[in-house]
Amino acid sequence: MTRLKNYSEGSTKARRYRSPEFVSVDHLVILAPGLLGASVARAARAHACAHHITVWARRAEVRAALRDQPWIDTVADTPEHAVAQKPVGRTLVVLAAPVERIIELDRLIGTSLPAGAIVTDVGSVKGPVCAAAAVHPRTTSAVFIGSHPMAGSEKTGWEHGTDTFFEGRICFVTPSAGTPADAVHTVEEFWRGLGSTVVNVAPEKHDEIVAHISHLPQALATTLACALSQKDGQWRNLSGNGLRDTSRIAASDPAMWIEIFQQNRAAVLIALERYESELAGFRHALEQSDWPALREQLARGKQWRDGFNR
Amino acid sequence: MTRLKNYSEGSTKARRYRSPEFVSVDHLVILAPGLLGASVARAARAHACAHHITVWARRAEVRAALRDQPWIDTVADTPEHAVAQKPVGRTLVVLAAPVERIIELDRLIGTSLPAGAIVTDVGSVKGPVCAAAAVHPRTTSAVFIGSHPMAGSEKTGWEHGTDTFFEGRICFVTPSAGTPADAVHTVEEFWRGLGSTVVNVAPEKHDEIVAHISHLPQALATTLACALSQKDGQWRNLSGNGLRDTSRIAASDPAMWIEIFQQNRAAVLIALERYESELAGFRHALEQSDWPALREQLARGKQWRDGFNR
Repeated sequence: MTRLKNYSEGSTKARRYRSPEFVSVDHLVILAPGLLGASVARAARAHACAHHITVWARRAEVRAALRDQPWIDTVADTPEHAVAQKPVGRTLVVLAAPVERIIELDRLIGTSLPAGAIVTDVGSVKGPVCAAAAVHPRTTSAVFIGSHPMAGSEKTGWEHGTDTFFEGRICFVTPSAGTPADAVHTVEEFWRGLGSTVVNVAPEKHDEIVAHISHLPQALATTLACALSQKDGQWRNLSGNGLRDTSRIAASDPAMWIEIFQQNRAAVLIALERYESELAGFRHALEQSDWPALREQLARGKQWRDGFNR
Repeated sequence: MTRLKNYSEGSTKARRYRSPEFVSVDHLVILAPGLLGASVARAARAHACAHHITVWARRAEVRAALRDQPWIDTVADTPEHAVAQKPVGRTLVVLAAPVERIIELDRLIGTSLPAGAIVTDVGSVKGPVCAAAAVHPRTTSAVFIGSHPMAGSEKTGWEHGTDTFFEGRICFVTPSAGTPADAVHTVEEFWRGLGSTVVNVAPEKHDEIVAHISHLPQALATTLACALSQKDGQWRNLSGNGLRDTSRIAASDPAMWIEIFQQNRAAVLIALERYESELAGFRHALEQSDWPALREQLARGKQWRDGFNR
């Protein structure tokens, strides 16, 4: 607690986003903190959303480095020990690993959880994670509720985490039909406490939405970059901001994205099919010099883009 | 000249990008100033690249408004009068209209130009403009040299022009085989004086390059926006920065872009074909769960995007 006090006093950025009725989490556990997990811990500390913060990382050298961080109270040696540290009070576990490791970790800690513990994650695909979590053995009254904060960066690694990472970002929370309302409320209030706007949808609906608004743009940026990679490499540096912005996320981590496409394959294929049909319409209009049709697409695209409210 | 002096003294932003040997233009004429044309005038004034600046705008009310601007010396009533204002010294005319109007304006002023005058433009497609200019009647020793500054904004209109608009931007200069070297040098030095990096290529090569680095990204942003416009309109506001950046230029002016696609149709179709082949490869890999192929595309796209030097 001394450490927490010192950190809060030292931070000029500490702001409270929590609603008045939100009681901060007694024990926040982050398993496998990378960029997102470290940011969860730092933001929770900065905004006083957790009393005690425990982390576990797979590699011993990362655990050693994390022991020096002021935004961590305890570094545990195993995931099971991490979640069992503080059996009294409200425990929130955040699985911050890539999607496939999230499922493994959830299975691993299930019966080590204290009663009433809530487990959530930060994975980009929710259907497979929530379906797996629903059948994992789990301490009575402990629950899993999926989360997906729409925050990221081309950077990776816990060293790049910040305490403002989730401010102003959307965070999906994806309970299943039978999830207790108070547990859902706790997860939602936690993300709000970190500065996010919470959107509550079913896991499958989430996956359909992100297939369109996140995975499809990634596919386009990647394939645009690939198409241009076959031309003179100097061309990219002759461009205006249009190409830079359109292709920016092509620089994202392939290892992370291959998992996302694997996990959300069916929904992405549907989104791609819709997109290919629009692109075929565009090409056809250009081929046929059908300027009214091309103008309609340009105007429709503009109208949609002008509707961004942020 | 008094006005120029006052403006320069009053500006804290005035910087000199001109090389030591560049003699500033005696008479800079901007025809049909919108966002780009106004920015050319303002930047030329701020960087002392022109002694006298004359503009002409099609609409009387715009001409009236321009008369109050400190970065303009003379507002002419016709394009012919504008270019003929100062028959002594070095005249540079910048045709700042949309592509089709550029060709009309160049034809209109051809025989009103003083001897030795240089005409350039700011159009996004160079082949048709330069080909038309080559056969327009023109005062002896006056020449046309195409330009295309890679600078823009979703905003339009002369009111939004700035004197830093071209700083750090690429500007293509596209002389034909027979263009006199000293005229090319003057145009290149003028754009450098405004803060741009000049790239000298033939008109057809320019059109091939921008089909890939500018017109293809526009087609993708537009069709992405169109595909998403068929889904729940609220979804766009749930996205992270990825969708915002990938789709940003979908908000561009349809009237400007329909002209660009008309003028550069053949080159854009070639770029689109290359792109569609990459996208088909991506979809095929996803359909077949061919993860090595998908990973190769993600990695190739990242490698290309990481190679941006700005």
